[in-house]
Amino acid sequence: MHFASDNWAGAHPKIAENLNKHASGFASAYGTSTLDKAVEQTFNEIFEREVAVFFVATGTAANSLAQASIAKPAGVTLAHRGAHLIEDEGGAPEFLTGGARLHPVDGPIGRMSIDNLKAAIKGFAPGDVHAGRPMGVSVTQSTEIGTLYDLGEIAAISALCRENGLPLHMDGARFANALVSLGCSPADMTWRQGVDILSFGGTKNGCWCAEALVFMDPAKARDMPFIRKRSAQLFSKSRFIAAQFEAYFADGLWLELAGHANAMAARLCGHITASNTLRLAWQPRANEVFAIMAKDTAKNLHERGAVFYDWKPPYSERHLVDENETLVRLVTSFATSPEEIDRFGELIA
Amino acid sequence: MHFASDNWAGAHPKIAENLNKHASGFASAYGTSTLDKAVEQTFNEIFEREVAVFFVATGTAANSLAQASIAKPAGVTLAHRGAHLIEDEGGAPEFLTGGARLHPVDGPIGRMSIDNLKAAIKGFAPGDVHAGRPMGVSVTQSTEIGTLYDLGEIAAISALCRENGLPLHMDGARFANALVSLGCSPADMTWRQGVDILSFGGTKNGCWCAEALVFMDPAKARDMPFIRKRSAQLFSKSRFIAAQFEAYFADGLWLELAGHANAMAARLCGHITASNTLRLAWQPRANEVFAIMAKDTAKNLHERGAVFYDWKPPYSERHLVDENETLVRLVTSFATSPEEIDRFGELIA
Amino acid sequence: MHFASDNWAGAHPKIAENLNKHASGFASAYGTSTLDKAVEQTFNEIFEREVAVFFVATGTAANSLAQASIAKPAGVTLAHRGAHLIEDEGGAPEFLTGGARLHPVDGPIGRMSIDNLKAAIKGFAPGDVHAGRPMGVSVTQSTEIGTLYDLGEIAAISALCRENGLPLHMDGARFANALVSLGCSPADMTWRQGVDILSFGGTKNGCWCAEALVFMDPAKARDMPFIRKRSAQLFSKSRFIAAQFEAYFADGLWLELAGHANAMAARLCGHITASNTLRLAWQPRANEVFAIMAKDTAKNLHERGAVFYDWKPPYSERHLVDENETLVRLVTSFATSPEEIDRFGELIA
Amino acid sequence: MHFASDNWAGAHPKIAENLNKHASGFASAYGTSTLDKAVEQTFNEIFEREVAVFFVATGTAANSLAQASIAKPAGVTLAHRGAHLIEDEGGAPEFLTGGARLHPVDGPIGRMSIDNLKAAIKGFAPGDVHAGRPMGVSVTQSTEIGTLYDLGEIAAISALCRENGLPLHMDGARFANALVSLGCSPADMTWRQGVDILSFGGTKNGCWCAEALVFMDPAKARDMPFIRKRSAQLFSKSRFIAAQFEAYFADGLWLELAGHANAMAARLCGHITASNTLRLAWQPRANEVFAIMAKDTAKNLHERGAVFYDWKPPYSERHLVDENETLVRLVTSFATSPEEIDRFGELIA
Repeated sequence: MHFASDNWAGAHPKIAENLNKHASGFASAYGTSTLDKAVEQTFNEIFEREVAVFFVATGTAANSLAQASIAKPAGVTLAHRGAHLIEDEGGAPEFLTGGARLHPVDGPIGRMSIDNLKAAIKGFAPGDVHAGRPMGVSVTQSTEIGTLYDLGEIAAISALCRENGLPLHMDGARFANALVSLGCSPADMTWRQGVDILSFGGTKNGCWCAEALVFMDPAKARDMPFIRKRSAQLFSKSRFIAAQFEAYFADGLWLELAGHANAMAARLCGHITASNTLRLAWQPRANEVFAIMAKDTAKNLHERGAVFYDWKPPYSERHLVDENETLVRLVTSFATSPEEIDRFGELIA
Repeated sequence: MHFASDNWAGAHPKIAENLNKHASGFASAYGTSTLDKAVEQTFNEIFEREVAVFFVATGTAANSLAQASIAKPAGVTLAHRGAHLIEDEGGAPEFLTGGARLHPVDGPIGRMSIDNLKAAIKGFAPGDVHAGRPMGVSVTQSTEIGTLYDLGEIAAISALCRENGLPLHMDGARFANALVSLGCSPADMTWRQGVDILSFGGTKNGCWCAEALVFMDPAKARDMPFIRKRSAQLFSKSRFIAAQFEAYFADGLWLELAGHANAMAARLCGHITASNTLRLAWQPRANEVFAIMAKDTAKNLHERGAVFYDWKPPYSERHLVDENETLVRLVTSFATSPEEIDRFGELIA
Repeated sequence: MHFASDNWAGAHPKIAENLNKHASGFASAYGTSTLDKAVEQTFNEIFEREVAVFFVATGTAANSLAQASIAKPAGVTLAHRGAHLIEDEGGAPEFLTGGARLHPVDGPIGRMSIDNLKAAIKGFAPGDVHAGRPMGVSVTQSTEIGTLYDLGEIAAISALCRENGLPLHMDGARFANALVSLGCSPADMTWRQGVDILSFGGTKNGCWCAEALVFMDPAKARDMPFIRKRSAQLFSKSRFIAAQFEAYFADGLWLELAGHANAMAARLCGHITASNTLRLAWQPRANEVFAIMAKDTAKNLHERGAVFYDWKPPYSERHLVDENETLVRLVTSFATSPEEIDRFGELIA
Repeated sequence: MHFASDNWAGAHPKIAENLNKHASGFASAYGTSTLDKAVEQTFNEIFEREVAVFFVATGTAANSLAQASIAKPAGVTLAHRGAHLIEDEGGAPEFLTGGARLHPVDGPIGRMSIDNLKAAIKGFAPGDVHAGRPMGVSVTQSTEIGTLYDLGEIAAISALCRENGLPLHMDGARFANALVSLGCSPADMTWRQGVDILSFGGTKNGCWCAEALVFMDPAKARDMPFIRKRSAQLFSKSRFIAAQFEAYFADGLWLELAGHANAMAARLCGHITASNTLRLAWQPRANEVFAIMAKDTAKNLHERGAVFYDWKPPYSERHLVDENETLVRLVTSFATSPEEIDRFGELIA
């Protein structure tokens, strides 16, 4: 019963096979190979427009270099208080932008409220060098706590961004899970709602290591080759990332895997709802389920072989968890089996 | 006839297979898995002491984070003028150290001369804040131009480092090629000669993407987990790097592959020496061969399918190349076949 | 009626005169002159121990370089949410540390509560590279909103720092005002309570430009000459800063000036307390008075020649100000006259 | 006999007086005062166009922030090998740009030769992320070794810059000395020859601390307020810098002082030329004289009270100095008296 994280899973066999297939032969390095170019073309098709794609090594890199690409002296990116960018990148965004800052914006269930965001932006008076200035906004889709922005909500945030001359970044570490859940197209979830830059994650959804930074307007990516290189994120044998993405996209594998993970999460929700000992902290919409239970229950589940993390309650939801209780995160992935879910279901019945 | 670079080769089948073998199942992330730990243990065995190992995404990262680990305010690392660190990392060392500088030291055939190094260090008067201060020395083994430091030369440099309180870094992007050529052990080529930090490269020698930063004294690596994370170099599915190294080290595969590459380079040298149209620029000792030929000859070879780069003559060797001539670099790898070499040999005969 | 800021005042005549006195003649540059050395000695006497003193150009520089001196990769300094370091330095602390972060800690009337600070430190699990790690704590004395930490409160914070291996920095932009108010010695307010590094401000208290970074333990300041230089904060004609401090300290001028500013603030409080239209937001203890009044009243006062800033209510005190009201900051200085205060008193009577 | 540096001199009485004059009264902070604005207007007049002016604390800051204003990821500024920017700023340019690099260009007597500069720029192939990319060029006027670029030489460099899309920065730490020597106008020596950004130094020529960054096109300076603040270079009582510049410019004082310094240097040259024991290293054109003498002679002069520095021979001129000789630097200033010069003259006669 592995619910610790989707990055505990391995690689999907089709992705592993494709790596193997491309193992032999010679190809030019640093992202210039035929395979690299072909995969870039696939990105164009998937996003229904010409985009600029940059492979990087980690989600942290994608998120941080996105900020670097929009960085301004004394600049500040606004993101939800619980965003990975703010809480979990070990200072990489600040470091890899050369000192930009992150400004936390509150909002329930992992999403910035538009009013809070508006107020936060307004809090920076134009030209006030002491406070610094906004340089961008970042949303996470699906969010850190398994919820989603609906398309209209993304559009509202991007409208606010446009008014204030701010580019909009989307942290899509679990992009596919969100996409499948909303049942919309990649274009719909991004540039059609005004998203400018996307951290496109493949690692959590069945790749070994496949993260890409996608610029909806290639003209905005002119500095990126230099930003990537100086950040030590340019792979020499870049085609090994490309090979993963090739298999990932082939025959819609990526959506299939995300769909499976989401379905497993829904199945898990069913068990939790039916249970007397656990309750859902909030309604999950992707592949992360948060549940509240007595501390003893959690301990017991751990002992019986369920692997998951206790989670610090989000700031806006901290009232949901009583003193004797704990919040836990249960993450499903392409590799989660219905049997595992049901075994857990039995434990908590 | 692929001699452009050893990073144009793919992955050795045994390495690709091992990745496949570890594709399934769950394992804890961020370098904590059983496989990660086992491979760290293998590093200990190979270096005959307990070392601290950090996987990173690129050779640029390994070299840059090595500098970050020894960085001091207003610090300067001394390296050969032609070092990758100075010429080919796109400013990553400066950026990822938060502004450290690199000081070029001259010396023939890719190696710092001890006298020049001594003079360069002496050029920084103690406490002179205007000039800054040395913070480390970096050697490349094998060098950028296919030559080697002999063990005694490394020892002499490290003695100078000790006198001046400077840690010694080795850029081992082609560590295995050097090792095989010298016929010594990893311990002999590193800490027994006073090397403190090693960029251990596997990518150019048959891996997809396997680079490690090795600290000979783990106590000196205490900040590294934080340095790696803030530099966005911590892989979530770290075990996929570990899997490559596992196969790389198994049954001495790494030495076998490097030995093959070196042998191919030697075979190539034989053809060049026998040729009337080409001459060796200097004696190669690893898997990179530099040859001088008429510009027309180079053009002709390119047209006949030989893939290689024209090379800017190193500063200390710039007199070797006449106006109508060009210097070219020919790199062999684990994937180079004797047939390729001989075909090239026929072309230049 | 100038209450905009103490940095709107000029220089005290004695300080101006002393600059004049040292205008002629030759002296060695970069902080090595006899006068520089004499003033460093005066700092030793004032702090009753050997300290290390570094003149810098601005309070922002003092605060930022203090952080740089304790910076660690992925490091975080904890400070009150309203601290200058967090809200008003334009990102200089993040920039001049090479990417360190600041973590806001709440607490009433401008002071971190010890419980919040404890919880914040605890929030960083040891070795958690994703969250980063605490590298220091910073208190402001007097605070941004004219209140004070009592000596016991500083001692409690420093005890917590010691337990967690964290150096304690004090932002003393208004150090003298706090000192006079508490009636203690510089040693009492700093190292005797466990303060390690002090931003010692003279500019707001009658100097032109005289800011110093003071390390209570000179051994902790070994990198500072290099940190200062690489941050472009090393004055060539450093003696002109020294000359200001010489006059500042002579015959206790600095305490006299701060005493005057505080007395003017107290006089202002008297008028406000007696007034029907204004009320004190909280009890001031140094030279900054915060008052709440109807927006109309503020407008009226501005029109009648009172110069002051409307102030954003601090987070912990935001409930104090009604919708039709405004919070204003009134700052007194060495140059404030009783007549000015009383004229303002008449306006609000 | 003070020839150590022009920054060993104090402040000219008229500048000191003007500081005094502005000591009293209240004025708005951070560069917004009436006096600040008036001095900005004076800069416009002096440069015969609307310029953008930013006061900073040190010449190091002016030079470094100039680079920050033109910084690009993986960017490189080209400057003479002996430039202050490269040799004497303690890494501040690299640090305050967030990791930009400096590329040394050779050329005799302190000036980049146009051919070397052209070759250096050409050495960076467009789009080559490994090598990085030029982001600007910097000239020093007068140079580090007391020579000058003639107007046509500046124009030739700026033409090359234009062709390559590179802004041209001038380090004018001794701007006035160069100006007086060339007998041209500030506009002639800067924007009329294509200079974009100027470090305008007043400190070495009779101010306490008055350095300004001047952008010939204010539109290029839009980020500068933020760059200056995040670099901790924004003075609160900025008017004290303005007051120095006010006096500096009044009635052409600045040109008078520079003229005096230059005249003293010329007088010194006369003595050296007439001497049997010293010879000029090269013809000085501003206020720095470099002379070669036997080591014993230098020692003797020091003992007789002449204060000056032994100087490391510039790379291109290293052949001029024999083994038993030393190169020394003799700097004159506004405060140098003819008597001092003649006393030195007697010593070396």
